Amino acid sequence: MRRILLVIAYDGTNYHGWQAQNDVGAVPTIEGALLTALGQLIPGETPAIIGASRTDSGVHAKGNVATFDTNCTIPTENFPRALNRYLPEDIRIMQAREVPSDFHPRYTPHRKTYEYHIDNARIPDPLKRLYSYSFTYPVDIDRMREAAGYLTGTHDFTSFVNPDSQVFQHGGDAVRTIYLIEIERIGRNQVIDGWSHEEDFEQTDNRENEIVIRISGSGFLYHMIRIIVGTLLDIGVGRKTPSDIPKILDAKDRTKAGPTVPAKGLCLVDLDYSV
Amino acid sequence: MRRILLVIAYDGTNYHGWQAQNDVGAVPTIEGALLTALGQLIPGETPAIIGASRTDSGVHAKGNVATFDTNCTIPTENFPRALNRYLPEDIRIMQAREVPSDFHPRYTPHRKTYEYHIDNARIPDPLKRLYSYSFTYPVDIDRMREAAGYLTGTHDFTSFVNPDSQVFQHGGDAVRTIYLIEIERIGRNQVIDGWSHEEDFEQTDNRENEIVIRISGSGFLYHMIRIIVGTLLDIGVGRKTPSDIPKILDAKDRTKAGPTVPAKGLCLVDLDYSV
Repeated sequence: MRRILLVIAYDGTNYHGWQAQNDVGAVPTIEGALLTALGQLIPGETPAIIGASRTDSGVHAKGNVATFDTNCTIPTENFPRALNRYLPEDIRIMQAREVPSDFHPRYTPHRKTYEYHIDNARIPDPLKRLYSYSFTYPVDIDRMREAAGYLTGTHDFTSFVNPDSQVFQHGGDAVRTIYLIEIERIGRNQVIDGWSHEEDFEQTDNRENEIVIRISGSGFLYHMIRIIVGTLLDIGVGRKTPSDIPKILDAKDRTKAGPTVPAKGLCLVDLDYSV
Repeated sequence: MRRILLVIAYDGTNYHGWQAQNDVGAVPTIEGALLTALGQLIPGETPAIIGASRTDSGVHAKGNVATFDTNCTIPTENFPRALNRYLPEDIRIMQAREVPSDFHPRYTPHRKTYEYHIDNARIPDPLKRLYSYSFTYPVDIDRMREAAGYLTGTHDFTSFVNPDSQVFQHGGDAVRTIYLIEIERIGRNQVIDGWSHEEDFEQTDNRENEIVIRISGSGFLYHMIRIIVGTLLDIGVGRKTPSDIPKILDAKDRTKAGPTVPAKGLCLVDLDYSV
Protein backbone atom coordinates (compact mmCIF):
# COMPACT_ATOMS: atom_id res chain seq x y z
CA MET A 1 0.00 0.00 0.00
CA ARG A 2 1.41 3.38 -1.00
CA ARG A 3 0.19 6.79 0.16
CA ILE A 4 0.34 9.20 -2.78
CA LEU A 5 0.36 12.97 -2.41
CA LEU A 6 -1.06 15.03 -5.27
CA VAL A 7 -0.49 18.75 -5.88
CA ILE A 8 -3.63 20.01 -7.59
CA ALA A 9 -4.42 23.20 -9.52
CA TYR A 10 -7.95 24.16 -10.49
CA ASP A 11 -10.18 26.87 -11.80
CA GLY A 12 -12.94 26.93 -9.18
CA THR A 13 -15.41 28.84 -11.38
CA ASN A 14 -17.54 25.85 -12.26
CA TYR A 15 -17.29 23.95 -8.96
CA HIS A 16 -19.17 24.02 -5.69
CA GLY A 17 -15.92 23.95 -3.77
CA TRP A 18 -13.65 21.09 -2.82
CA GLN A 19 -15.80 18.78 -0.79
CA ALA A 20 -17.81 16.03 -2.47
CA GLN A 21 -21.49 16.05 -1.55
CA ASN A 22 -23.15 12.94 -0.14
CA ASP A 23 -24.47 12.10 -3.57
CA VAL A 24 -21.17 12.18 -5.49
CA GLY A 25 -21.60 13.81 -8.86
CA ALA A 26 -24.89 15.50 -8.03
CA VAL A 27 -23.13 18.84 -7.67
CA PRO A 28 -19.72 19.22 -9.30
CA THR A 29 -16.91 19.46 -6.75
CA ILE A 30 -13.14 19.17 -7.06
CA GLU A 31 -13.03 16.13 -4.77
CA GLY A 32 -15.88 14.54 -6.72
CA ALA A 33 -14.01 15.01 -10.02
CA LEU A 34 -10.86 13.49 -8.48
CA LEU A 35 -12.79 10.50 -7.13
CA THR A 36 -14.31 9.90 -10.57
CA ALA A 37 -10.91 10.14 -12.29
CA LEU A 38 -9.26 7.80 -9.75
CA GLY A 39 -12.12 5.33 -10.18
CA GLN A 40 -11.53 5.33 -13.95
CA LEU A 41 -7.74 5.03 -13.66
CA ILE A 42 -7.77 2.33 -10.95
CA PRO A 43 -11.03 0.42 -11.57
CA GLY A 44 -10.59 -2.11 -8.76
CA GLU A 45 -10.10 0.40 -5.98
CA THR A 46 -12.30 3.11 -4.51
CA PRO A 47 -9.79 5.07 -2.45
CA ALA A 48 -10.80 7.87 -0.12
CA ILE A 49 -9.21 11.23 -0.84
CA ILE A 50 -8.03 13.45 2.00
CA GLY A 51 -7.73 17.08 0.99
CA ALA A 52 -5.44 19.53 2.80
CA SER A 53 -7.72 22.50 2.25
CA ARG A 54 -11.44 22.23 1.56
CA THR A 55 -11.70 25.38 -0.52
CA ASP A 56 -15.08 27.11 -0.79
CA SER A 57 -17.29 27.30 -3.84
CA GLY A 58 -15.64 29.42 -6.53
CA VAL A 59 -12.18 29.55 -4.91
CA HIS A 60 -9.23 28.66 -7.17
CA ALA A 61 -6.01 26.77 -6.45
CA LYS A 62 -2.53 26.51 -7.89
CA GLY A 63 -1.25 24.15 -5.23
CA ASN A 64 -3.84 22.40 -3.12
CA VAL A 65 -2.74 19.02 -1.77
CA ALA A 66 -4.54 15.72 -1.30
CA THR A 67 -3.54 12.15 -0.50
CA PHE A 68 -4.95 8.72 -1.25
CA ASP A 69 -3.80 5.15 -0.66
CA THR A 70 -3.43 2.60 -3.43
CA ASN A 71 -2.24 -0.94 -4.14
CA CYS A 72 -2.02 -0.36 -7.89
CA THR A 73 1.24 -0.71 -9.83
CA ILE A 74 1.21 2.67 -11.58
CA PRO A 75 4.60 4.36 -10.93
CA THR A 76 4.11 7.37 -8.65
CA GLU A 77 5.61 9.85 -11.11
CA ASN A 78 3.08 8.80 -13.76
CA PHE A 79 0.01 9.85 -11.77
CA PRO A 80 -0.14 13.47 -13.01
CA ARG A 81 -0.19 12.47 -16.67
CA ALA A 82 -2.46 9.48 -16.10
CA LEU A 83 -5.04 11.32 -13.97
CA ASN A 84 -5.00 14.44 -16.15
CA ARG A 85 -6.23 12.25 -19.00
CA TYR A 86 -9.45 11.56 -17.05
CA LEU A 87 -9.89 15.00 -15.46
CA PRO A 88 -11.68 17.99 -17.01
CA GLU A 89 -9.19 20.60 -18.23
CA ASP A 90 -10.06 23.03 -15.43
CA ILE A 91 -8.45 20.60 -12.94
CA ARG A 92 -4.81 19.53 -13.33
CA ILE A 93 -2.59 17.31 -11.22
CA MET A 94 0.71 19.22 -11.13
CA GLN A 95 2.79 16.75 -9.10
CA ALA A 96 2.60 13.35 -7.42
CA ARG A 97 4.91 11.80 -4.85
CA GLU A 98 4.90 9.00 -2.31
CA VAL A 99 4.68 10.06 1.33
CA PRO A 100 4.98 8.08 4.58
CA SER A 101 1.83 6.15 5.48
CA ASP A 102 1.29 8.38 8.55
CA PHE A 103 1.41 11.61 6.53
CA HIS A 104 -1.88 13.52 6.82
CA PRO A 105 -2.22 16.58 4.58
CA ARG A 106 -4.38 18.43 7.10
CA TYR A 107 -2.75 17.48 10.41
CA THR A 108 0.91 17.52 9.33
CA PRO A 109 2.01 21.09 10.13
CA HIS A 110 2.33 23.30 7.09
CA ARG A 111 2.30 26.86 5.94
CA LYS A 112 -0.60 27.87 3.68
CA THR A 113 -0.24 30.73 1.20
CA TYR A 114 -3.22 32.34 -0.48
CA GLU A 115 -3.40 35.19 -2.99
CA TYR A 116 -6.35 37.51 -3.38
CA HIS A 117 -6.53 39.36 -6.72
CA ILE A 118 -8.31 42.70 -7.06
CA ASP A 119 -8.97 44.40 -10.41
CA ASN A 120 -8.69 48.02 -9.28
CA ALA A 121 -9.35 49.58 -12.69
CA ARG A 122 -12.21 52.03 -13.12
CA ILE A 123 -13.83 49.62 -15.61
CA PRO A 124 -13.30 45.90 -14.97
CA ASP A 125 -11.10 44.01 -17.42
CA PRO A 126 -13.21 41.19 -18.95
CA LEU A 127 -10.06 39.04 -19.16
CA LYS A 128 -9.65 39.20 -15.39
CA ARG A 129 -13.29 38.85 -14.40
CA LEU A 130 -13.15 35.14 -13.54
CA TYR A 131 -10.07 35.39 -11.32
CA SER A 132 -10.31 38.75 -9.57
CA TYR A 133 -12.72 40.96 -7.68
CA SER A 134 -13.54 44.21 -9.46
CA PHE A 135 -13.13 47.02 -6.93
CA THR A 136 -13.32 50.32 -8.81
CA TYR A 137 -12.60 52.86 -6.05
CA PRO A 138 -9.07 54.29 -5.69
CA VAL A 139 -7.29 52.68 -2.74
CA ASP A 140 -4.26 53.69 -0.70
CA ILE A 141 -1.95 50.69 -0.66
CA ASP A 142 0.29 52.18 2.04
CA ARG A 143 -2.62 52.42 4.49
CA MET A 144 -3.50 48.80 3.74
CA ARG A 145 0.12 47.75 4.39
CA GLU A 146 0.12 49.58 7.70
CA ALA A 147 -3.11 47.79 8.67
CA ALA A 148 -1.63 44.45 7.58
CA GLY A 149 1.16 44.97 10.11
CA TYR A 150 -1.40 44.83 12.92
CA LEU A 151 -2.84 41.56 11.61
CA THR A 152 0.50 39.75 11.28
CA GLY A 153 1.43 37.51 14.19
CA THR A 154 -0.68 35.41 16.56
CA HIS A 155 -4.13 36.79 17.37
CA ASP A 156 -7.65 35.73 18.19
CA PHE A 157 -9.34 36.24 14.82
CA THR A 158 -12.95 35.83 16.03
CA SER A 159 -13.84 39.17 14.40
CA PHE A 160 -12.56 37.82 11.07
CA VAL A 161 -14.51 34.55 10.96
CA ASN A 162 -17.89 33.74 9.55
CA PRO A 163 -19.95 33.01 12.70
CA ASP A 164 -21.21 29.81 11.04
CA SER A 165 -17.70 28.38 11.34
CA GLN A 166 -17.74 24.83 12.62
CA VAL A 167 -14.63 25.54 14.67
CA PHE A 168 -16.76 27.07 17.44
CA GLN A 169 -19.30 24.22 17.38
CA HIS A 170 -16.43 21.84 18.01
CA GLY A 171 -15.11 23.80 20.97
CA GLY A 172 -12.13 25.22 19.09
CA ASP A 173 -10.88 28.78 19.16
CA ALA A 174 -10.01 31.41 16.60
CA VAL A 175 -6.38 31.91 17.63
CA ARG A 176 -4.25 31.65 14.49
CA THR A 177 -0.83 32.88 13.31
CA ILE A 178 -0.35 34.95 10.18
CA TYR A 179 3.29 34.89 9.10
CA LEU A 180 3.13 37.41 6.31
CA ILE A 181 0.79 39.75 4.45
CA GLU A 182 2.22 41.27 1.26
CA ILE A 183 0.27 43.81 -0.77
CA GLU A 184 1.46 44.87 -4.18
CA ARG A 185 0.16 46.65 -7.22
CA ILE A 186 1.15 44.83 -10.40
CA GLY A 187 1.12 45.81 -14.06
CA ARG A 188 1.41 49.20 -15.55
CA ASN A 189 -0.90 52.16 -15.83
CA GLN A 190 -1.49 52.44 -19.52
CA VAL A 191 -2.68 55.43 -21.46
CA ILE A 192 -4.22 54.85 -24.86
CA ASP A 193 -2.04 56.93 -27.16
CA GLY A 194 -3.11 59.16 -29.95
CA TRP A 195 -5.56 61.44 -28.16
CA SER A 196 -4.21 64.76 -27.03
CA HIS A 197 -7.22 66.30 -25.33
CA GLU A 198 -7.01 67.40 -21.74
CA GLU A 199 -9.69 65.00 -20.56
CA ASP A 200 -7.60 62.05 -21.74
CA PHE A 201 -6.06 62.05 -18.35
CA GLU A 202 -9.48 61.37 -16.88
CA GLN A 203 -9.86 58.53 -19.31
CA THR A 204 -6.52 56.98 -18.44
CA ASP A 205 -7.04 53.32 -18.87
CA ASN A 206 -5.49 51.76 -15.83
CA ARG A 207 -6.60 48.31 -16.91
CA GLU A 208 -3.36 46.71 -15.68
CA ASN A 209 -4.09 48.08 -12.29
CA GLU A 210 -4.25 44.89 -10.30
CA ILE A 211 -3.69 44.54 -6.56
CA VAL A 212 -2.44 41.24 -5.19
CA ILE A 213 -2.67 40.48 -1.48
CA ARG A 214 -0.57 37.48 -0.45
CA ILE A 215 -1.23 35.96 2.96
CA SER A 216 0.68 33.11 4.62
CA GLY A 217 -0.33 31.45 7.85
CA SER A 218 -0.48 28.23 9.81
CA GLY A 219 -4.16 27.86 9.03
CA PHE A 220 -7.19 29.97 8.29
CA LEU A 221 -10.77 29.96 9.50
CA TYR A 222 -14.01 29.99 7.51
CA HIS A 223 -14.01 33.11 5.26
CA MET A 224 -11.08 34.55 7.27
CA ILE A 225 -8.98 35.68 4.30
CA ARG A 226 -11.99 37.12 2.46
CA ILE A 227 -12.98 39.11 5.58
CA ILE A 228 -9.37 40.30 6.09
CA VAL A 229 -9.27 41.50 2.47
CA GLY A 230 -12.67 43.22 2.81
CA THR A 231 -11.40 44.98 5.93
CA LEU A 232 -8.13 46.03 4.25
CA LEU A 233 -10.14 47.51 1.36
CA ASP A 234 -12.31 49.44 3.85
CA ILE A 235 -9.04 50.89 5.15
CA GLY A 236 -7.67 51.46 1.63
CA VAL A 237 -10.64 53.69 0.74
CA GLY A 238 -10.62 55.51 4.11
CA ARG A 239 -13.76 53.96 5.59
CA LYS A 240 -11.61 52.61 8.45
CA THR A 241 -8.11 53.45 9.68
CA PRO A 242 -5.11 51.13 10.13
CA SER A 243 -5.25 51.66 13.90
CA ASP A 244 -8.82 50.33 13.92
CA ILE A 245 -7.38 46.83 13.45
CA PRO A 246 -6.30 46.29 17.09
CA LYS A 247 -9.77 47.45 18.22
CA ILE A 248 -11.49 45.10 15.75
CA LEU A 249 -9.34 42.19 16.95
CA ASP A 250 -10.10 43.03 20.60
CA ALA A 251 -13.85 43.27 19.96
CA LYS A 252 -14.10 39.58 18.94
CA ASP A 253 -17.17 40.62 16.98
CA ARG A 254 -17.63 39.81 13.27
CA THR A 255 -19.74 42.92 12.72
CA LYS A 256 -16.76 45.19 13.51
CA ALA A 257 -14.69 43.91 10.54
CA GLY A 258 -15.26 44.67 6.85
CA PRO A 259 -17.34 42.75 4.30
CA THR A 260 -16.59 39.25 2.97
CA VAL A 261 -15.20 39.80 -0.55
CA PRO A 262 -16.16 37.38 -3.39
CA ALA A 263 -14.65 33.88 -3.66
CA LYS A 264 -13.50 34.28 -7.28
CA GLY A 265 -10.60 36.60 -6.28
CA LEU A 266 -9.13 33.97 -3.95
CA CYS A 267 -6.51 31.39 -4.92
CA LEU A 268 -4.71 28.84 -2.72
CA VAL A 269 -1.23 29.12 -4.18
CA ASP A 270 1.00 26.96 -2.01
CA LEU A 271 1.15 24.51 0.88
CA ASP A 272 4.60 24.17 2.41
CA TYR A 273 5.19 21.11 4.61
CA SER A 274 8.87 21.94 5.24
CA VAL A 275 8.02 24.19 8.20
CA MET B 1 -24.66 63.90 -35.81
CA ARG B 2 -21.67 62.81 -33.73
CA ARG B 3 -19.19 60.07 -34.56
CA ILE B 4 -18.30 58.19 -31.37
CA LEU B 5 -15.20 56.07 -30.97
CA LEU B 6 -15.33 53.19 -28.50
CA VAL B 7 -12.36 51.32 -27.02
CA ILE B 8 -13.55 47.79 -26.36
CA ALA B 9 -12.18 44.92 -24.28
CA TYR B 10 -13.53 41.41 -24.51
CA ASP B 11 -13.02 37.79 -23.62
CA GLY B 12 -13.39 36.10 -27.00
CA THR B 13 -13.93 32.61 -25.53
CA ASN B 14 -17.68 32.54 -26.09
CA TYR B 15 -17.83 34.50 -29.37
CA HIS B 16 -17.53 33.60 -33.01
CA GLY B 17 -15.24 36.55 -33.62
CA TRP B 18 -16.00 40.20 -34.19
CA GLN B 19 -18.16 40.27 -37.24
CA ALA B 20 -21.94 39.99 -36.95
CA GLN B 21 -23.44 37.27 -39.13
CA ASN B 22 -26.21 38.09 -41.62
CA ASP B 23 -28.79 36.91 -39.13
CA VAL B 24 -27.77 39.07 -36.17
CA GLY B 25 -27.93 37.11 -32.96
CA ALA B 26 -27.92 33.69 -34.61
CA VAL B 27 -24.29 33.17 -33.62
CA PRO B 28 -22.88 35.32 -30.81
CA THR B 29 -20.36 37.86 -32.08
CA ILE B 30 -18.82 40.93 -30.48
CA GLU B 31 -20.29 43.24 -33.11
CA GLY B 32 -23.69 41.59 -32.67
CA ALA B 33 -23.58 42.14 -28.89
CA LEU B 34 -22.62 45.81 -29.43
CA LEU B 35 -25.44 46.32 -31.94
CA THR B 36 -27.92 44.81 -29.47
CA ALA B 37 -26.67 47.03 -26.62
CA LEU B 38 -26.76 50.18 -28.79
CA GLY B 39 -30.28 49.31 -29.90
CA GLN B 40 -31.36 49.06 -26.27
CA LEU B 41 -29.57 52.25 -25.20
CA ILE B 42 -30.74 54.34 -28.20
CA PRO B 43 -34.09 52.79 -29.19
CA GLY B 44 -34.83 55.17 -32.08
CA GLU B 45 -31.61 54.58 -33.98
CA THR B 46 -30.03 51.54 -35.61
CA PRO B 47 -26.49 52.74 -36.17
CA ALA B 48 -23.94 50.73 -38.14
CA ILE B 49 -20.77 49.87 -36.23
CA ILE B 50 -17.40 50.03 -37.97
CA GLY B 51 -14.77 47.92 -36.27
CA ALA B 52 -11.04 48.62 -36.58
CA SER B 53 -10.07 44.98 -36.35
CA ARG B 54 -12.40 42.09 -37.13
CA THR B 55 -10.83 39.63 -34.74
CA ASP B 56 -11.26 35.92 -35.38
CA SER B 57 -13.34 33.49 -33.38
CA GLY B 58 -11.84 33.02 -29.92
CA VAL B 59 -9.39 35.95 -30.11
CA HIS B 60 -9.45 38.37 -27.14
CA ALA B 61 -9.04 42.15 -26.99
CA LYS B 62 -8.04 44.75 -24.44
CA GLY B 63 -8.26 47.68 -26.85
CA ASN B 64 -10.17 47.06 -30.06
CA VAL B 65 -11.76 50.18 -31.55
CA ALA B 66 -15.09 50.80 -33.26
CA THR B 67 -17.09 53.84 -34.31
CA PHE B 68 -20.77 54.61 -34.79
CA ASP B 69 -22.79 57.73 -35.61
CA THR B 70 -25.59 59.02 -33.44
CA ASN B 71 -28.02 61.90 -33.01
CA CYS B 72 -28.81 61.01 -29.42
CA THR B 73 -28.19 63.41 -26.54
CA ILE B 74 -26.18 61.06 -24.30
CA PRO B 75 -22.93 62.83 -23.31
CA THR B 76 -19.99 61.12 -25.00
CA GLU B 77 -18.17 60.37 -21.74
CA ASN B 78 -21.24 58.50 -20.45
CA PHE B 79 -21.23 55.85 -23.18
CA PRO B 80 -18.92 53.37 -21.39
CA ARG B 81 -21.06 53.23 -18.26
CA ALA B 82 -24.34 53.32 -20.21
CA LEU B 83 -23.41 50.62 -22.72
CA ASN B 84 -21.76 48.38 -20.11
CA ARG B 85 -25.13 48.17 -18.39
CA TYR B 86 -26.55 46.42 -21.47
CA LEU B 87 -23.51 44.36 -22.43
CA PRO B 88 -22.63 40.89 -21.09
CA GLU B 89 -19.79 41.07 -18.58
CA ASP B 90 -17.28 39.48 -20.99
CA ILE B 91 -17.48 42.64 -23.14
CA ARG B 92 -16.63 46.06 -21.65
CA ILE B 93 -16.48 49.52 -23.19
CA MET B 94 -13.30 50.98 -21.70
CA GLN B 95 -13.45 54.46 -23.27
CA ALA B 96 -15.60 56.63 -25.53
CA ARG B 97 -14.75 59.87 -27.32
CA GLU B 98 -16.00 61.96 -30.17
CA VAL B 99 -13.96 61.85 -33.38
CA PRO B 100 -14.17 63.87 -36.61
CA SER B 101 -16.92 62.71 -38.96
CA ASP B 102 -14.35 61.56 -41.53
CA PHE B 103 -12.49 59.37 -39.02
CA HIS B 104 -12.51 55.73 -40.13
CA PRO B 105 -11.10 53.23 -37.60
CA ARG B 106 -9.80 50.93 -40.35
CA TYR B 107 -8.53 53.41 -42.95
CA THR B 108 -7.07 56.02 -40.62
CA PRO B 109 -3.42 54.93 -40.28
CA HIS B 110 -2.65 53.30 -36.97
CA ARG B 111 -0.29 50.97 -35.23
CA LYS B 112 -1.77 47.68 -34.03
CA THR B 113 -0.25 45.79 -31.09
CA TYR B 114 -1.09 42.18 -30.34
CA GLU B 115 0.12 39.88 -27.59
CA TYR B 116 0.33 36.13 -27.85
CA HIS B 117 0.46 34.24 -24.53
CA ILE B 118 2.06 30.82 -24.23
CA ASP B 119 1.83 28.65 -21.11
CA ASN B 120 5.24 26.95 -21.35
CA ALA B 121 4.87 24.86 -18.19
CA ARG B 122 5.19 21.08 -18.36
CA ILE B 123 1.60 20.75 -17.15
CA PRO B 124 -0.83 23.49 -18.25
CA ASP B 125 -2.10 25.87 -15.57
CA PRO B 126 -5.93 25.59 -15.48
CA LEU B 127 -6.11 29.29 -14.55
CA LYS B 128 -4.38 30.23 -17.81
CA ARG B 129 -6.13 27.77 -20.10
CA LEU B 130 -8.66 30.24 -21.55
CA TYR B 131 -6.11 32.94 -22.40
CA SER B 132 -2.96 31.11 -23.42
CA TYR B 133 -1.72 28.27 -25.61
CA SER B 134 -0.24 25.37 -23.68
CA PHE B 135 3.09 24.51 -25.30
CA THR B 136 4.88 22.05 -23.04
CA TYR B 137 8.23 21.64 -24.81
CA PRO B 138 11.27 23.63 -23.57
CA VAL B 139 11.97 26.54 -25.91
CA ASP B 140 15.05 28.71 -26.45
CA ILE B 141 13.86 32.31 -26.22
CA ASP B 142 17.14 33.70 -27.59
CA ARG B 143 16.76 31.75 -30.83
CA MET B 144 13.19 33.05 -31.14
CA ARG B 145 14.41 36.62 -30.61
CA GLU B 146 17.08 36.18 -33.27
CA ALA B 147 14.41 34.91 -35.67
CA ALA B 148 12.12 37.81 -34.80
CA GLY B 149 14.85 40.20 -35.96
CA TYR B 150 14.51 38.80 -39.50
CA LEU B 151 10.73 39.36 -39.45
CA THR B 152 10.87 42.97 -38.28
CA GLY B 153 10.63 45.59 -41.03
CA THR B 154 8.80 45.61 -44.36
CA HIS B 155 8.45 42.25 -46.08
CA ASP B 156 6.15 40.28 -48.33
CA PHE B 157 4.47 38.02 -45.77
CA THR B 158 2.79 35.66 -48.28
CA SER B 159 4.36 32.68 -46.47
CA PHE B 160 2.72 33.84 -43.22
CA VAL B 161 -0.85 34.22 -44.46
CA ASN B 162 -3.71 31.77 -44.56
CA PRO B 163 -4.15 31.18 -48.34
CA ASP B 164 -7.90 31.75 -47.90
CA SER B 165 -7.16 35.42 -47.16
CA GLN B 166 -9.50 37.72 -49.03
CA VAL B 167 -6.63 40.13 -49.61
CA PHE B 168 -5.49 38.11 -52.63
CA GLN B 169 -9.02 37.79 -54.05
CA HIS B 170 -9.24 41.56 -54.01
CA GLY B 171 -5.95 42.05 -55.86
CA GLY B 172 -4.03 43.13 -52.77
CA ASP B 173 -0.59 42.03 -51.73
CA ALA B 174 0.99 40.69 -48.55
CA VAL B 175 3.59 43.43 -48.08
CA ARG B 176 3.33 44.64 -44.49
CA THR B 177 5.56 46.37 -41.94
CA ILE B 178 6.28 44.93 -38.51
CA TYR B 179 7.67 47.61 -36.21
CA LEU B 180 8.54 45.46 -33.25
CA ILE B 181 8.53 41.90 -31.95
CA GLU B 182 9.26 41.51 -28.24
CA ILE B 183 9.53 38.10 -26.62
CA GLU B 184 9.70 37.74 -22.86
CA ARG B 185 9.34 35.08 -20.23
CA ILE B 186 7.26 36.32 -17.31
CA GLY B 187 6.70 35.01 -13.81
CA ARG B 188 8.98 32.93 -11.72
CA ASN B 189 10.04 29.35 -11.72
CA GLN B 190 8.65 28.01 -8.52
CA VAL B 191 9.69 24.96 -6.59
CA ILE B 192 7.22 23.41 -4.20
CA ASP B 193 9.07 23.45 -0.90
CA GLY B 194 9.26 20.76 1.67
CA TRP B 195 10.50 17.87 -0.41
CA SER B 196 14.18 17.25 -0.27
CA HIS B 197 14.55 14.28 -2.59
CA GLU B 198 16.83 14.47 -5.57
CA GLU B 199 13.99 13.98 -8.04
CA ASP B 200 12.29 17.10 -6.77
CA PHE B 201 14.30 19.00 -9.27
CA GLU B 202 12.64 16.99 -11.99
CA GLN B 203 9.31 17.92 -10.51
CA THR B 204 10.06 21.62 -10.42
CA ASP B 205 6.74 23.28 -10.93
CA ASN B 206 7.41 25.99 -13.44
CA ARG B 207 3.76 26.94 -13.52
CA GLU B 208 4.55 30.67 -13.77
CA ASN B 209 6.47 29.94 -16.91
CA GLU B 210 4.62 32.08 -19.39
CA ILE B 211 5.99 33.44 -22.65
CA VAL B 212 4.54 36.65 -24.08
CA ILE B 213 5.19 37.61 -27.69
CA ARG B 214 4.27 41.23 -28.42
CA ILE B 215 4.00 42.27 -32.08
CA SER B 216 3.33 45.76 -33.42
CA GLY B 217 2.70 46.58 -37.05
CA SER B 218 0.81 48.72 -39.50
CA GLY B 219 -1.59 45.91 -40.22
CA PHE B 220 -1.73 42.14 -40.23
CA LEU B 221 -3.11 39.59 -42.64
CA TYR B 222 -5.45 36.66 -42.01
CA HIS B 223 -3.82 34.40 -39.35
CA MET B 224 -0.49 36.23 -39.84
CA ILE B 225 0.36 36.60 -36.15
CA ARG B 226 -0.69 33.06 -35.30
CA ILE B 227 1.52 31.70 -38.13
CA ILE B 228 4.44 33.92 -37.04
CA VAL B 229 4.12 32.59 -33.48
CA GLY B 230 3.88 28.98 -34.72
CA THR B 231 7.05 29.53 -36.75
CA LEU B 232 8.88 31.16 -33.84
CA LEU B 233 7.98 28.16 -31.64
CA ASP B 234 9.33 25.79 -34.35
CA ILE B 235 12.58 27.75 -34.06
CA GLY B 236 12.42 27.80 -30.25
CA VAL B 237 12.36 24.00 -30.11
CA GLY B 238 15.02 23.57 -32.81
CA ARG B 239 12.78 22.32 -35.61
CA LYS B 240 13.84 25.33 -37.69
CA THR B 241 16.73 27.83 -37.36
CA PRO B 242 16.55 31.64 -37.12
CA SER B 243 18.29 31.93 -40.49
CA ASP B 244 15.45 29.93 -42.07
CA ILE B 245 13.26 33.03 -41.77
CA PRO B 246 14.69 34.88 -44.81
CA LYS B 247 14.26 31.70 -46.88
CA ILE B 248 10.66 31.27 -45.70
CA LEU B 249 9.89 34.91 -46.58
CA ASP B 250 11.53 34.51 -50.01
CA ALA B 251 9.60 31.32 -50.77
CA LYS B 252 6.20 33.11 -50.63
CA ASP B 253 4.77 29.71 -49.75
CA ARG B 254 2.56 29.10 -46.71
CA THR B 255 3.75 25.51 -46.39
CA LYS B 256 7.30 26.67 -45.58
CA ALA B 257 6.24 28.47 -42.37
CA GLY B 258 5.20 26.86 -39.07
CA PRO B 259 1.72 25.88 -37.86
CA THR B 260 -1.13 28.28 -37.04
CA VAL B 261 -1.29 28.36 -33.23
CA PRO B 262 -4.71 28.51 -31.47
CA ALA B 263 -6.78 31.70 -31.33
CA LYS B 264 -7.21 31.68 -27.56
CA GLY B 265 -3.58 32.77 -26.95
CA LEU B 266 -4.06 35.93 -29.03
CA CYS B 267 -5.11 39.31 -27.68
CA LEU B 268 -5.41 42.65 -29.51
CA VAL B 269 -3.98 44.94 -26.86
CA ASP B 270 -3.76 48.38 -28.45
CA LEU B 271 -4.54 50.48 -31.52
CA ASP B 272 -2.54 53.69 -31.70
CA TYR B 273 -3.83 56.37 -34.10
CA SER B 274 -1.10 58.90 -33.19
CA VAL B 275 1.31 57.45 -35.77
